[in-house]
Amino acid sequence: MSVSTGREFLSIPGPTNIPDDVLGAMHRPAVDIYSGDLPHVTMSCLEDLKTVFATTGQTFIFAANGHGAWEAALSNTLSRGDKVLVLESGRFATAWGEMARKMGLDVEVLPGGPRRAVDPQAVADYLAQDAKRDPGQQIKAVLVVQIDTAAGVVNDIKAIRAAITEAGHSALYFVDVIASLGCMSFSMDEWGVDVAVAGSQKGLMTPPGLRFNAVSAKAMSAHERADLTTHYWDWTARLAPEHYNKYCGTPPEHLLFGLRKALDMLLAEGLDNVFRRHALLAGATHEAVRGWGSSGALELNIIEPQERAASVTTILLNEQHIVPLLDYARDNCNVVLGIGIGDYNGKAFRIAHMGYANAPMLLGTLSVIEMGLSALGVPHGKGVQAAIDFLAREVPAGKQHLGETGAAGEADAKSPETTTCAGQTCC
Amino acid sequence: MSVSTGREFLSIPGPTNIPDDVLGAMHRPAVDIYSGDLPHVTMSCLEDLKTVFATTGQTFIFAANGHGAWEAALSNTLSRGDKVLVLESGRFATAWGEMARKMGLDVEVLPGGPRRAVDPQAVADYLAQDAKRDPGQQIKAVLVVQIDTAAGVVNDIKAIRAAITEAGHSALYFVDVIASLGCMSFSMDEWGVDVAVAGSQKGLMTPPGLRFNAVSAKAMSAHERADLTTHYWDWTARLAPEHYNKYCGTPPEHLLFGLRKALDMLLAEGLDNVFRRHALLAGATHEAVRGWGSSGALELNIIEPQERAASVTTILLNEQHIVPLLDYARDNCNVVLGIGIGDYNGKAFRIAHMGYANAPMLLGTLSVIEMGLSALGVPHGKGVQAAIDFLAREVPAGKQHLGETGAAGEADAKSPETTTCAGQTCC
Amino acid sequence: MSVSTGREFLSIPGPTNIPDDVLGAMHRPAVDIYSGDLPHVTMSCLEDLKTVFATTGQTFIFAANGHGAWEAALSNTLSRGDKVLVLESGRFATAWGEMARKMGLDVEVLPGGPRRAVDPQAVADYLAQDAKRDPGQQIKAVLVVQIDTAAGVVNDIKAIRAAITEAGHSALYFVDVIASLGCMSFSMDEWGVDVAVAGSQKGLMTPPGLRFNAVSAKAMSAHERADLTTHYWDWTARLAPEHYNKYCGTPPEHLLFGLRKALDMLLAEGLDNVFRRHALLAGATHEAVRGWGSSGALELNIIEPQERAASVTTILLNEQHIVPLLDYARDNCNVVLGIGIGDYNGKAFRIAHMGYANAPMLLGTLSVIEMGLSALGVPHGKGVQAAIDFLAREVPAGKQHLGETGAAGEADAKSPETTTCAGQTCC
Amino acid sequence: MSVSTGREFLSIPGPTNIPDDVLGAMHRPAVDIYSGDLPHVTMSCLEDLKTVFATTGQTFIFAANGHGAWEAALSNTLSRGDKVLVLESGRFATAWGEMARKMGLDVEVLPGGPRRAVDPQAVADYLAQDAKRDPGQQIKAVLVVQIDTAAGVVNDIKAIRAAITEAGHSALYFVDVIASLGCMSFSMDEWGVDVAVAGSQKGLMTPPGLRFNAVSAKAMSAHERADLTTHYWDWTARLAPEHYNKYCGTPPEHLLFGLRKALDMLLAEGLDNVFRRHALLAGATHEAVRGWGSSGALELNIIEPQERAASVTTILLNEQHIVPLLDYARDNCNVVLGIGIGDYNGKAFRIAHMGYANAPMLLGTLSVIEMGLSALGVPHGKGVQAAIDFLAREVPAGKQHLGETGAAGEADAKSPETTTCAGQTCC
Repeated sequence: MSVSTGREFLSIPGPTNIPDDVLGAMHRPAVDIYSGDLPHVTMSCLEDLKTVFATTGQTFIFAANGHGAWEAALSNTLSRGDKVLVLESGRFATAWGEMARKMGLDVEVLPGGPRRAVDPQAVADYLAQDAKRDPGQQIKAVLVVQIDTAAGVVNDIKAIRAAITEAGHSALYFVDVIASLGCMSFSMDEWGVDVAVAGSQKGLMTPPGLRFNAVSAKAMSAHERADLTTHYWDWTARLAPEHYNKYCGTPPEHLLFGLRKALDMLLAEGLDNVFRRHALLAGATHEAVRGWGSSGALELNIIEPQERAASVTTILLNEQHIVPLLDYARDNCNVVLGIGIGDYNGKAFRIAHMGYANAPMLLGTLSVIEMGLSALGVPHGKGVQAAIDFLAREVPAGKQHLGETGAAGEADAKSPETTTCAGQTCC
Repeated sequence: MSVSTGREFLSIPGPTNIPDDVLGAMHRPAVDIYSGDLPHVTMSCLEDLKTVFATTGQTFIFAANGHGAWEAALSNTLSRGDKVLVLESGRFATAWGEMARKMGLDVEVLPGGPRRAVDPQAVADYLAQDAKRDPGQQIKAVLVVQIDTAAGVVNDIKAIRAAITEAGHSALYFVDVIASLGCMSFSMDEWGVDVAVAGSQKGLMTPPGLRFNAVSAKAMSAHERADLTTHYWDWTARLAPEHYNKYCGTPPEHLLFGLRKALDMLLAEGLDNVFRRHALLAGATHEAVRGWGSSGALELNIIEPQERAASVTTILLNEQHIVPLLDYARDNCNVVLGIGIGDYNGKAFRIAHMGYANAPMLLGTLSVIEMGLSALGVPHGKGVQAAIDFLAREVPAGKQHLGETGAAGEADAKSPETTTCAGQTCC
Repeated sequence: MSVSTGREFLSIPGPTNIPDDVLGAMHRPAVDIYSGDLPHVTMSCLEDLKTVFATTGQTFIFAANGHGAWEAALSNTLSRGDKVLVLESGRFATAWGEMARKMGLDVEVLPGGPRRAVDPQAVADYLAQDAKRDPGQQIKAVLVVQIDTAAGVVNDIKAIRAAITEAGHSALYFVDVIASLGCMSFSMDEWGVDVAVAGSQKGLMTPPGLRFNAVSAKAMSAHERADLTTHYWDWTARLAPEHYNKYCGTPPEHLLFGLRKALDMLLAEGLDNVFRRHALLAGATHEAVRGWGSSGALELNIIEPQERAASVTTILLNEQHIVPLLDYARDNCNVVLGIGIGDYNGKAFRIAHMGYANAPMLLGTLSVIEMGLSALGVPHGKGVQAAIDFLAREVPAGKQHLGETGAAGEADAKSPETTTCAGQTCC
Repeated sequence: MSVSTGREFLSIPGPTNIPDDVLGAMHRPAVDIYSGDLPHVTMSCLEDLKTVFATTGQTFIFAANGHGAWEAALSNTLSRGDKVLVLESGRFATAWGEMARKMGLDVEVLPGGPRRAVDPQAVADYLAQDAKRDPGQQIKAVLVVQIDTAAGVVNDIKAIRAAITEAGHSALYFVDVIASLGCMSFSMDEWGVDVAVAGSQKGLMTPPGLRFNAVSAKAMSAHERADLTTHYWDWTARLAPEHYNKYCGTPPEHLLFGLRKALDMLLAEGLDNVFRRHALLAGATHEAVRGWGSSGALELNIIEPQERAASVTTILLNEQHIVPLLDYARDNCNVVLGIGIGDYNGKAFRIAHMGYANAPMLLGTLSVIEMGLSALGVPHGKGVQAAIDFLAREVPAGKQHLGETGAAGEADAKSPETTTCAGQTCC
């Protein structure tokens, strides 16, 4: 017997829940690629992406999925045999390094731990050593991921930049913000990032199939000397003014219409509000896990609170419980949780709170996990109660979306609307 | 500051949450009304509605909203001056009676209380008296509502039929199942109902705009003598074989395509599963209110557990708290709760658990209410915890949708699928 | 072998082609009926309908199809036994009269011919006679249809009003504009119309399921004395300020969202432009039929050019050819034409050019008819050529949508946009 | 004044008209990438693509647009410095060669003319010469386009294979079928093609953003020795069994749901029927241009009838007329025609008849062109008439979609359905 009909709660770290308005914006006939709305959609998206990346540099949109934008970042700036440094943390920096190696780059790895963020001091030390080499043999680029969805960790991108600078090193600074852009603060120019790599299907609330590069002047300059560049990813070709050249082929129209709507929604909410919303949902999730774990079998993977990601939480659980819990949630309650991946496979599961998410979506998900823990006999404390208590404290009555005060007056003003039905026959 | 972006949780007793597949089925061009799919859609909906009403009688679909089907039921069977008996409970039977009075019928009311269902014995007594009158002056129809959404009450339709029979009375038996059809058991033929009145937008998960009558042979026979019949509602005209006549004008194509899909979904889930799902969600809601109220200010409107509706719960709360709570839920958390209506306005609010609903949707809603109670300082106990505990007991691990046992084997079979990603780069 | 995959060309006089934007506007979750957007949608639609009807009177929206709004018009204003005059032309005025008779009204009919509009002089004569009767026995309402889709005829509503006035008669003047509103000029107040009856699914480009009444002060005053009024159609109840009362039950939300978008589109195009577009498409159709018929078997049903409808054309054709032609168009070419109905069944077929229609939609349809005539061996002349020639004359180069001159300059300004791709690799 | 409201007629050679059912299939929430429907969608699409390519080789789906699949074909099979031969015809083979050159390949070009297909004999002669070189210096791959949309030309892929074989040459044979797949016959295995390159947005009726490779065993074998392979395009990585690896990152879910539906539609119609439909529409277009040009200014670009493409027609026209004609069609009639690109810019325009297209869509487009020629005073003959006459001959009455005979009987069987309304009140 189940209670699973009804909306699916998709709680995986990408693709994330797509707003109905974004799906609606994609539900339209194909359009001409030379006239009409489309060129404006492209140009305005490229411009608004600068706002989202907090940069005055160049932005690029690729029709690609997965790790295409990683390949774009590397191939546009480096040459065969160049040395790059990967800052290990979680799973994805390592995978980016594997891709680099396959492209003929010389990859060094600064090791990290499975439950910790990158240590900026270790980066400073490593690069200080490297800076003493022959410039021709120095590291050309440092690769790091802001939020790693496998570990649920967030790296301090600003502090790592400071470490590079402290080391007196001239390497390019590449940051994967695929799982953080639109979820937490990212200040490309202020933080001295040279190439930021992102995608459509997480914080940007759009179906998968679009990838982004944001590029600093220093990276554009390196691009001129790179010999790995191929036509499909080539930044230069995409800087030509004609609309057609922006995509090396037919623009991915429908995904662009979706992206346009999603950016409208993000900017209408206000990036600071978006980040605050993610912080609250992450905080509630952490409280819930602490509540469950205080007398039980669950534990947050990331040890230091300030190193926990705003968009996804990785939770350690005994292997024997993981598949039953995920099956219970999915089969009985229509809640899809994230499995542990890479080194975390069989050791953890994940709850995403990323993109188009709010309190009832998260609390419904957490409640179903607690149902599952009870039904499966996994020892646990009161997690949902902790999450509710946290959110009730953080979201006081009368505080409205934009943080106005004077809510009492507003509430009064609203009452007539909600009570017009007094004495009537309604439903 | 809010956590309100993200999906809206619509928790009002109609219109209810519409499945994406129903909306998708409506998103198509207009079609011819004489050829193609449409005539089949009409005929199969009329047929499947018989299954849903559990009748071998006639079914009718009206393009109408609100109380059109009430008017259809009365006008097709009665004549000016006929006497009808309204069984008061909540708000809607009374409103139906007001409509009857306006049509020129002579309306008597068997009074009921605001927190109770209709008492079948009182019906038996009333009708036994009436049966002694001159047949020409006797009550011609008894009007009752199965679930009244204002009170959150369910009436015992089978027991009321027994009361009519016990009284030896020949009145037609009219039942409004607008808020119960597709949410709980209704057996028109077995229970001796003559006209059942329903709509599309509650348990049937379709946008508002379609109304239904299911009609017994006895009512069809009364129809031949009725003088209130007008062309728009006329059953006889709609029994003509041509498709066009089924609707007295252009068929409401898009709503019909939605209804067709919704009926497919209901029947695929299985009506018994649908009813069990509603019972579980109602039970969880009642547990939550008991949990909140054990030390606080909230109380279930309906006193007797077996008289509480499966589709909506009416909760008494001090007036000063109602609007702030509903505003908090809506403005801060995107949860829309039902206001109290009629006599309950300013005295209660309502939680719908009707139609396309499941555990995380309900638990998310309940959690937000508890957030609001805390944030507003309304004294309350632990309601969400009670609801989770209840559902965890009722939905044990391994029990699947169709109630199979042997879930352990199934879970094993599934494991490979959810772990294919071991060691891979995912997201 | 066929060429029928690809878009269906729906060329029936209702429901008509629905713009993608209207379908898109309907593809959204259900919403609360007390707060949010919906009350504004209702009020703005009621207001914009006044613009479309060209009235300062009251407007009403009914969830109903077919002839519900006919019933509303009659039941709100008349009493049992009242006399009404039906001005026969085509099929629908007669049907309206049949409905009136069933409601207990005393119906007189001024006969008309199957290929002609109503003769205003005959109306004047008839009413002048009637005006001499005892006022209590005089005709209380005159019923006429502006465009009858069966005959393809348009009646001169302004001239008929003049005839009523000339006769010194005080009858209410009821006009069915179901197939003309949004297709041709209608000036309710200027022409002295008392109740106008319309629907959503023709010129208003919205799915079927909404019906409208526009009501003059004189008709509102008659409403106070009417005894046929029932609750569902009652204008008075719908004038109450609360949103809920506007619909006598749950508002038909999705149809309203569609209507809102359709009204936006109509008003953005400008009613005069809309009417000019319909006139051009009708003119092209008439030219095509003349072209086919000059040496052949087809003939326009309506003899006088000024009596031909702007929204639909009825074409006489020998019965043996009709079904084969319609089958050819539908089965081989995905073009759905209108059958002849009522007295025209087996004698005519129909081409609609109504609502969301333009030159290539019409010319594609006409071309397929000409294909069919050739393939079936039906003698005919060159109709499509005549339609193209007509439209080329009426739509000269450089004249833009809003009738600007100076198009050469505009075209120049546009050239760069359409030639940006010179020398590039496109598709 | 215009007649431009109403559906846009998109008549460009990609993206093409997307069926409503494909857009509908994309309008759904994001789904899990490890469980549920998605893995099946991927595997069934890869399998059905084999049917469409007529191959038993491997198929690959890339999230990419434009020329990504060109890059995939080259990078997976070749090494830096390898020699390739481009068979010039139109624009795209040349562009493919430019991409190859940028990747470090040694590109030779067999020149072609702007109004002719590739001459197989010239290929045979060229390769016979090459076959005499040191095997290490021989041409490794021959690149050709089946349909070039710039020229509107179709190359004889089978004959070119015969020429390669005749020359005794072992080069890989790469064919771009982007604008021909799903529009005309392509038999990869039978014709000895090694890599076929295609995309979603033309004959496959899906929005842009997916690219395909179909690969022979010989090409898979060459892949093992290639040194240009990068991770994103790597065939080997995508052959791993896990669903995730099929896309090198998050699967482009929504585009895949669209593709799934489009393949269902193509296979339901039957590929032979699809090709016949395209041949008829192309034939009608050629007739129309001949009709216009017999006394006028328009001419088919491709001289030999058998070298004209089934999916797009390129029409030579004096430069002064092109922009005015395209502006007229778009601004006054909502018909979007294709501009001339590459060497044809300013010399030609294009009519696409590709993918989801049928007779009324094409005839509406052709009619509007003829309107424009008249309105602009461009001398021309009767083209639409010629197209109608051609189609009426080719699509005789009674022949149904699947080529059944006995249509008279069928038509009879249908008659009752289309005449059910006799004597009724319809619309």
